[in-house]
Amino acid sequence: MSLEPRFAPPSTKPVSSAARVLDDWYVACESKALGKEPLAITFLGTPIAVFRRASGEPAAVLDRCPHRNVPLSMGRVRGERLECGYHGWQFDGAGRCQAIPGLCGEVDKAGRNVPAFATRELDGWVWVYGTPDADPEREPYRHPLHDDDRYTTVTQALDMEGSLHATAENALDVPHTAFLHRGLFRQDGDRQQIDVEVRRWQDRVEAEYFGESRPEGVLGKVLAPQGGEVRHVDRFILPCIAQVEYQLGEAHVIATTALTPITDYRTRLFGAVEFRLPVVSSRFVPTKTIGNVLKPLALKVLGQDADALRKQTRNVERFGGEQYVSTEIDVLGPEIMRLLRQAERGARRPPRDEPERKRIQMLV
Amino acid sequence: MSLEPRFAPPSTKPVSSAARVLDDWYVACESKALGKEPLAITFLGTPIAVFRRASGEPAAVLDRCPHRNVPLSMGRVRGERLECGYHGWQFDGAGRCQAIPGLCGEVDKAGRNVPAFATRELDGWVWVYGTPDADPEREPYRHPLHDDDRYTTVTQALDMEGSLHATAENALDVPHTAFLHRGLFRQDGDRQQIDVEVRRWQDRVEAEYFGESRPEGVLGKVLAPQGGEVRHVDRFILPCIAQVEYQLGEAHVIATTALTPITDYRTRLFGAVEFRLPVVSSRFVPTKTIGNVLKPLALKVLGQDADALRKQTRNVERFGGEQYVSTEIDVLGPEIMRLLRQAERGARRPPRDEPERKRIQMLV
Amino acid sequence: MSLEPRFAPPSTKPVSSAARVLDDWYVACESKALGKEPLAITFLGTPIAVFRRASGEPAAVLDRCPHRNVPLSMGRVRGERLECGYHGWQFDGAGRCQAIPGLCGEVDKAGRNVPAFATRELDGWVWVYGTPDADPEREPYRHPLHDDDRYTTVTQALDMEGSLHATAENALDVPHTAFLHRGLFRQDGDRQQIDVEVRRWQDRVEAEYFGESRPEGVLGKVLAPQGGEVRHVDRFILPCIAQVEYQLGEAHVIATTALTPITDYRTRLFGAVEFRLPVVSSRFVPTKTIGNVLKPLALKVLGQDADALRKQTRNVERFGGEQYVSTEIDVLGPEIMRLLRQAERGARRPPRDEPERKRIQMLV
Repeated sequence: MSLEPRFAPPSTKPVSSAARVLDDWYVACESKALGKEPLAITFLGTPIAVFRRASGEPAAVLDRCPHRNVPLSMGRVRGERLECGYHGWQFDGAGRCQAIPGLCGEVDKAGRNVPAFATRELDGWVWVYGTPDADPEREPYRHPLHDDDRYTTVTQALDMEGSLHATAENALDVPHTAFLHRGLFRQDGDRQQIDVEVRRWQDRVEAEYFGESRPEGVLGKVLAPQGGEVRHVDRFILPCIAQVEYQLGEAHVIATTALTPITDYRTRLFGAVEFRLPVVSSRFVPTKTIGNVLKPLALKVLGQDADALRKQTRNVERFGGEQYVSTEIDVLGPEIMRLLRQAERGARRPPRDEPERKRIQMLV
Repeated sequence: MSLEPRFAPPSTKPVSSAARVLDDWYVACESKALGKEPLAITFLGTPIAVFRRASGEPAAVLDRCPHRNVPLSMGRVRGERLECGYHGWQFDGAGRCQAIPGLCGEVDKAGRNVPAFATRELDGWVWVYGTPDADPEREPYRHPLHDDDRYTTVTQALDMEGSLHATAENALDVPHTAFLHRGLFRQDGDRQQIDVEVRRWQDRVEAEYFGESRPEGVLGKVLAPQGGEVRHVDRFILPCIAQVEYQLGEAHVIATTALTPITDYRTRLFGAVEFRLPVVSSRFVPTKTIGNVLKPLALKVLGQDADALRKQTRNVERFGGEQYVSTEIDVLGPEIMRLLRQAERGARRPPRDEPERKRIQMLV
Repeated sequence: MSLEPRFAPPSTKPVSSAARVLDDWYVACESKALGKEPLAITFLGTPIAVFRRASGEPAAVLDRCPHRNVPLSMGRVRGERLECGYHGWQFDGAGRCQAIPGLCGEVDKAGRNVPAFATRELDGWVWVYGTPDADPEREPYRHPLHDDDRYTTVTQALDMEGSLHATAENALDVPHTAFLHRGLFRQDGDRQQIDVEVRRWQDRVEAEYFGESRPEGVLGKVLAPQGGEVRHVDRFILPCIAQVEYQLGEAHVIATTALTPITDYRTRLFGAVEFRLPVVSSRFVPTKTIGNVLKPLALKVLGQDADALRKQTRNVERFGGEQYVSTEIDVLGPEIMRLLRQAERGARRPPRDEPERKRIQMLV
C-alpha cells in the first residue's frame, strides 16, 4: 500500500543492469579467510557453505541441509566432511550424505545429498563455479604477476551496494574522477583532448588512453623520476574482473578487482594491487612507504565510490530499474553490459586473434 | 511467506484513503530551509531535488540524473544550474542539460534533460506543482493574513505517519479531542448540544460550530476578557490545506496546515498559526508569553495526534486498507474524501457563489 | 529487484509447513498477564485486543475499531466494555457497539460492531477460539495435573521464530539433542539401539521410547534414587500442544507447551512443567532446589532451540519454502504435519478407541 514512485519518463522503460552469468567462476573468499570454520557466503543470490577439508582443499555446498533446511554453515568440519549442527548429518565435498546419526538403516539414498559447487584455490583466492553439480566449462582468471617477486601485492576486500555492472563501470570510468573524487586526482579545470582506443575480444574489452600527462607533484616523481610516457589501460574480463593498468617508464601498477555478485544489487569486491617501482625510486623511497602513503588515499577514493554506488542503487530501486543515457565518453560501461548479456544468454562470441577496435576523443 | 492478516469482515472490501491529485500545488519546504545546498524531497511518491538558483528563485527537478541515475540532490548548485555529483552534468531550472564535462561533441540532445516541476515561493513556503514539465492550471493557496502586522505568526513542520486524508480529518475533527487529548481541552463529561453547519464549495468544505462556550480558566480570560461569542470554523481547501479558525471577541486565531503527501501513508505537515489578541490582553500579557505558554501544549496535542495516526496507519496497513464506518458527527472526513476523489479524477465541480449547506446536531 | 535465490533442486517444489487450523483454540496469554490494561495480541496473523472485564471474565475482539480503524488495544477497559482511545466508541465482550460519544442519534446499528472471539480461562491460561463470531466446536486442552498438589508447576513464555510445526517437531525430537545440545544431555558417542512405538489417534500422536537408560550422574540419582525403568513419551495434540513425559520410578515430569502461531513463521510458546519427585529425594533435596538447578539448564536448551529454529526459518524464507527429507527416525514431525493438514482442511479423522501403531528402531 505504499505509494510507489509514480514518475517515469514516457519514452523508455526501466531495465536492470543485473546479469546472471552462471557458467563461470567467482571469488568466494580470500584464501586466508577460510580456516577451520565453514563460511556462509551468498553469490548470485545463492547461499553456499564454503569449508576447508582436512586435506586442505576447499569445498562448497548449497547452504541448506536437505533434512530440515538449516544452514550447513552453522555446523562444523569433521575431517573431509561438513556436519550439520542440528541433527549431525554429514556431507562430503561432493555433497554426498555420508552419515545420519541414530539411523539404523542405509544412509546413502537419493534425495539426501546436497548440491555441490566446483572450487579452485588460485593466487590467494578461493573460486566457486556458478552452477552446482556441473563440470566447469572454463577455468578462473589468473594473476599473471602473482608469483613475480619484483612486484609487491596489496589486497583489500569490501562490499559495494551496486550491481556487478555498475561497480565495474565505476572502477573503470575516467570522467567521474574529476567530480566524485574532486581534489584527489583529476581536476575539473583546464582540460586537454586525448585519444582513447577501445578494443573488444570475445571475453573482454579494454580502453587505452593516449597522451595522458604524468601525474603532478611528488607522486609523479616517485613513479617516474625520469619522466616518460604514461601508458594507461582499463580492462574488463568476463565474468567479473575489472583491471586498471598504469605504466610510467619502469613503474608498473596493475589494480585487479574480482567482483562477486552477492545479489543483483550488492557486489563483493576483492582487490589486489600489484606494483613495482623504478630502481632509482625504490632505493630512496621504500616500497612499504609508498604503500603506507597510497592506502589511505585509495580507501578514501573507494569510500566515495561506495557512497555514489549506494545512492545510485537506491535511486534505481525506487525508480524500479536503470534508465541510463550514455555518451561516447562512457567508454566501457555499455561494452561491459553487452559482454555480460551475451554471456548470460550463453552466446559469447567466438574467439579470434585480432580485437575489434574503435577510437574516440575525450577531454581530460 | 508471512501469514497475512486473514480476517476481514465479509460485508465490505478495504479501500485506500490515499489520493493522488497531480494537477495542483504542494509545499516542498519552508523558504528558510532552502539555502545553498540542494534538498532531496519526496512528494506524491516522487523524489525531487529542490534548489535555489543564484538569482534566488527556487527550482525543482526529478531527483535522478538521466546519465547514471544518481540523485541530483547529491550534487551542488553552480550559478543557475544544478551539477550532478558523479560526472558533473549540469541542468538548468527547466531541466535542460547544459554541460557534460569531457564530451567533445554537442551537449544539447533529446533524452539528456531531466523532468522539471514548476515552483512558486509565497508567504514563507516553497511550492511545487504535482506534474512535471506542465503549465500549472491554478495557483497555490495564499495566507490572507501573512502580511498583516497586527498578527503574530508561529510555524512548525513535522511528519505524520498517515495519509493526507487521515491527517486532514484528524486536524479538523472535534469529537476525538475529549478522548485522545483527554484533560487537555475538551472533557468527556457533561455535554451540551450544539449546531454545526457544513458548507461545501467546489474546491473546499468548511464546518461552522454554533453555541460553543468560551474555554474555561485563564486561557479563556486572556483570549476574550470581556466574554463574547465564540466563532469556530474548520476548513479544508484542495488539495492540501487544513485550517482551524477561532474568533472570540477581538481575539482571532487561524491555524493553517499545508499537507504534503510524501507517500500514500506519510504526510509532511507545514503549520502556520497566525493570531492577534484583544488590546486589553496584549497590554498585560505579552504576545510572546502567550506563545511560550501555548507552544508546548500545541506540541503535546500534535504528539498525541501523531501517535494515533501512526497506530491507525499501521493497522490499516496490516488489514490491507481502510474500512471506515462514519456517523453524522464525522463532519468533514467523508466530505474531504469526496473532494479529493473528484480532484484525483480531474472532475472538480464547477465553481458557484453559494455553497451547498447542511445542518447537524452534536453533543460537545 | 533483488536477486532472489535462484537455486532449488529440480526434483521437488518448496512447500510451507504453516497450517491454519481456525476451528480450534489457542492460548492468547497467561492468566497472570491479563490485568486492567487491554493486551494487543496477534494469533493466526490476526490482531486481537484481549481484555478482562470488570466481572473478571476475559474477552477478545478484533483489534480494529470499525470507526477509524485504530487498534482497540490502545484504549481502556470501562466496566464490561472496551473503549476506543481515539473517539471513545465502546464495545462489549460480544463486540457490540454500546456508545458513540457526541452522537445524538441511535448507537446500535449494523456495521458498528467489532468481530469477537470466544474465550476460556483454564488452568492459568487464557484461550481464544480461532474463528470470530462463531460457536466453538470443541473445548480447549486441560492440564490433567494442574490441581494435583503432589505436583509443582513451573511456567515460562517465549517467542520462537519458527512455524508451529517446526517448533512442535523441535520440542518432541530426540535425535537433535546429541548435536544441537551437545554436552547438555545426550552425547554423540556410544549408542544403544532402542525401540520406539508410534501411536496415532484422530487428534493426537505420541511416541513411546523403550529401553532408554536412566540419565547419568547426580540428576539421575535425584530423579530415581532406586534406579528403575525410564518411561518416556512425546506427544502432540491438535491444534497446538507439544508434551514430553518422563517417569522414572516415583519421579514424574510432564512438560507441556501450548504453541500459538502468531504468524506463519513465528510461534509463541507457553510452557508449563509439572513434576513430582520420589519421597526419598524430596526429603533431602527440596523441590525448589531442583527447580533452581534445572531452570538455567532448560533455558539454555530453549535458547539453542530458538537459535536453530530462527536459522531454519530464515533459510526457509530465503529458499521460498520448506524442502524436507525425512527418515524413519523423524518419528513425529511428518505425523504432526499430517494431523495439521487434515485439521486445516476440516477433515479430522473419526475418533476410535484403539490408536494406529507402528514400531521402529533408533540408535540413541
